[in-house]
Amino acid sequence: MRLTGSRLAGFLLLLLRGCRRARRRGGEIGGFRGVPKRALSLEDGEGSSSTGEVSEALLSLCRRRHFLRDQDQGPTTWGSYLRGNHRGFGPLGVALRQNLAAQWWGSEAASRERVLGLGARASRPPSVAASPGTPSQALRAVAPAALRQAAEGGPALQKTLAASDTLREDLLHGVLEHYVECLELVNKRLPFGAAQIGTCFHAVATNEKENNVRTGERMMSILVWYSSGRTAGQWLDYWLRQRLQWWRKFAICPSNFSSSHHHDEEGRRGSNLYYSFPWGKELIETLRSLGDNELLKMYPGKGSQLHGRDGRKSMVPHILSVSGNLDSGVLAYLFDGFQLGENAVTRKKTQQRKVLKLHPSLTPIKVALDVARGPTTELRQVCQGLFSELLENGISVWPGYLETMPLTLEQLYTKYDEMSILFTILVSEATLENGVVQLRNRNTTMKEMMHISRLKDFLTKYISAAKNV
Amino acid sequence: MRLTGSRLAGFLLLLLRGCRRARRRGGEIGGFRGVPKRALSLEDGEGSSSTGEVSEALLSLCRRRHFLRDQDQGPTTWGSYLRGNHRGFGPLGVALRQNLAAQWWGSEAASRERVLGLGARASRPPSVAASPGTPSQALRAVAPAALRQAAEGGPALQKTLAASDTLREDLLHGVLEHYVECLELVNKRLPFGAAQIGTCFHAVATNEKENNVRTGERMMSILVWYSSGRTAGQWLDYWLRQRLQWWRKFAICPSNFSSSHHHDEEGRRGSNLYYSFPWGKELIETLRSLGDNELLKMYPGKGSQLHGRDGRKSMVPHILSVSGNLDSGVLAYLFDGFQLGENAVTRKKTQQRKVLKLHPSLTPIKVALDVARGPTTELRQVCQGLFSELLENGISVWPGYLETMPLTLEQLYTKYDEMSILFTILVSEATLENGVVQLRNRNTTMKEMMHISRLKDFLTKYISAAKNV
Repeated sequence: MRLTGSRLAGFLLLLLRGCRRARRRGGEIGGFRGVPKRALSLEDGEGSSSTGEVSEALLSLCRRRHFLRDQDQGPTTWGSYLRGNHRGFGPLGVALRQNLAAQWWGSEAASRERVLGLGARASRPPSVAASPGTPSQALRAVAPAALRQAAEGGPALQKTLAASDTLREDLLHGVLEHYVECLELVNKRLPFGAAQIGTCFHAVATNEKENNVRTGERMMSILVWYSSGRTAGQWLDYWLRQRLQWWRKFAICPSNFSSSHHHDEEGRRGSNLYYSFPWGKELIETLRSLGDNELLKMYPGKGSQLHGRDGRKSMVPHILSVSGNLDSGVLAYLFDGFQLGENAVTRKKTQQRKVLKLHPSLTPIKVALDVARGPTTELRQVCQGLFSELLENGISVWPGYLETMPLTLEQLYTKYDEMSILFTILVSEATLENGVVQLRNRNTTMKEMMHISRLKDFLTKYISAAKNV
Repeated sequence: MRLTGSRLAGFLLLLLRGCRRARRRGGEIGGFRGVPKRALSLEDGEGSSSTGEVSEALLSLCRRRHFLRDQDQGPTTWGSYLRGNHRGFGPLGVALRQNLAAQWWGSEAASRERVLGLGARASRPPSVAASPGTPSQALRAVAPAALRQAAEGGPALQKTLAASDTLREDLLHGVLEHYVECLELVNKRLPFGAAQIGTCFHAVATNEKENNVRTGERMMSILVWYSSGRTAGQWLDYWLRQRLQWWRKFAICPSNFSSSHHHDEEGRRGSNLYYSFPWGKELIETLRSLGDNELLKMYPGKGSQLHGRDGRKSMVPHILSVSGNLDSGVLAYLFDGFQLGENAVTRKKTQQRKVLKLHPSLTPIKVALDVARGPTTELRQVCQGLFSELLENGISVWPGYLETMPLTLEQLYTKYDEMSILFTILVSEATLENGVVQLRNRNTTMKEMMHISRLKDFLTKYISAAKNV
């Protein structure tokens, strides 16, 4: 990434402010990321009132800027989002999750020689769902008519229930069901993997007296890696390292992502990945070494069909499952990117500057396009041309020029900082004369002038440089 | 797109063969698409035995090459796929559907100034699901424990059922639930839209005696367009034209996509889009002009909160719903791209050349990379470098060089034609000397030599040229 004059100045300023952390991470050049005040204060051991304040402030920002949606009834809490018991994400939250899913897919599925992308169904017939390992408490999809018939003295309710389809709680068994065709596609050669992203369902107990349950939803990712038993341990280590690195890659505070090893009841190895929220660690991904038992139980009596080849040997492969919760991942990055700064002018807490410094690859909107005063029609035409050009190059744009609300520039920047928009481009009367626009950086709050013809290249390079840090 | 020598030759050959249709479509230069024999023969009024044969041959190809998966029980038929009553797509079918969804999203959601992308939940609590317009026969998500309790004399079954969450049958109501926050995001200015892609669930009656139902799934897309009542009619016309054009854009035989107008019981206008399968037309997308009633019913007593502005007027907007079935879209393009040709050498029906000429933007795998005889290690290294380079540029690659099965080149081409792979790159000993590889075109079956350094640019341009046709 080339350092232009004013961005270099911003970088120097950051250094002068003593941003040790930014320097320690090395890759974050050019004032790319600011000082993670929240994280610092948490590490410095501040009390729970401060962490509660941060959580509250972020929750309020996320609702105001439509990353999250309010609950129908009762208070909206971070817990309800972590449990999947909420009304879904708002448009910006959905875009953030989409970007996260795209990064996952690009890194784990699409770019690997030996990983196939799958799209198993969300529901399973009872014959399949009855396979070992499937939790019996999974939600069922039932037709109201069939239940009513059962209630009115038709077939017994148990029978109706037994015949109903199961909604998946995780993606593992759906992927394992594709094993035989995947094996054929890779010509029976081990190791190989299969990947999927999809919504999973789980029962959420509510506090009502009737022992009611709600349907919880979460977007999950899975990578199932099939290898010989001999190499399974090495692969677990490889994927743990790789996954931890992946989560950390997009973080301002990589050390908030951590891992721990565990053994399950059957003594099988595994690892958990966590994010440290202000209130404590929460699980975001699980790696489990499952041996060859799952496949043998799933396809009884079909041992030879299951055999893959590792060099000259032929065997039923061992399974490694790498299962992530992308909804929790979204929450983790919201906390990671959130920074509460003092407003230099007022120094009042209520007017603290709030910025959401999401990673350039993840942030839902990369650029906002706005107009200063001037000949409206001509300025809008410039904006529309720029809008199309940037979109064609895969840069998402917020068409601020369509708004007619009279906001001051400072109000606009405040709004865009909360929306985590990387750059604000201001097209003004000067642009019509000399083609120069003003570009304001979310992270440094620095402004610089740039010729309109250079924007596309600059933004593309900025985003791809961040990706490769 | 630049015409290289041999590709120009291929083009001329096609013209000489009398490919009127390819010329009429204008954009399909350079032997880009071949003669759509199947479609021609259908239009020529061939009997049902021939169309049945084509459907059978395609079904067999799709199962063999893992576009579709077999049924658990009973015969696998096209009908079961159209009804969403199947075991899901295979890896190649999933990739095709992903590409189709990405094209839809890019065209209808991401690239428009005034369309927001949403991700509403798949399940809804009963209070919301009870809103008018929601079909009461929608599947319910119930916890087995709650049902068992009801059966054992706990709360009445009706009560349990009434408290259960509904699984969405379409995306409309989920999107409408986001209306108020979308309105706020666009600063109350009409017109604007909201888009979503997601899995929908429906009950599929089975033929078993117990009046059993299975859970059907399909991937749906929706665009909800909010505009003033005054302009609603024009917008319906606009979106119908736009959507028909979109479906036709990826087709060899655009005329197989057609539309028809209709009025519903309440006299509201709408249009259906169909694809002509060999057995008849099937619905793939529905446009419905729903007036302002749905919003008023959904948010009773909140009239003023619903108001958007069109110029100086303020009103509750009219709704246009554009709802597509991407699973059916996948089936449509499979039929559109399927071509049965005579094998010039044998002229036997059983050895007909089968090609799946999916559009370059849609086809799951763009390029296959294979090695000819030669020093294995060196050739593989070349392949791995090329694999990474192409992937980084968004070109999906099939790593054929990993296979150890001794296939002849002709067998390989047959396989790749059925997998709808656009180009086969053959890396040979000559490549190590002079950097030249052989490139074989799926549509023309022509081979040409190309320097390895030119591949990336050539393929990128080929795919993007096809997109802009």
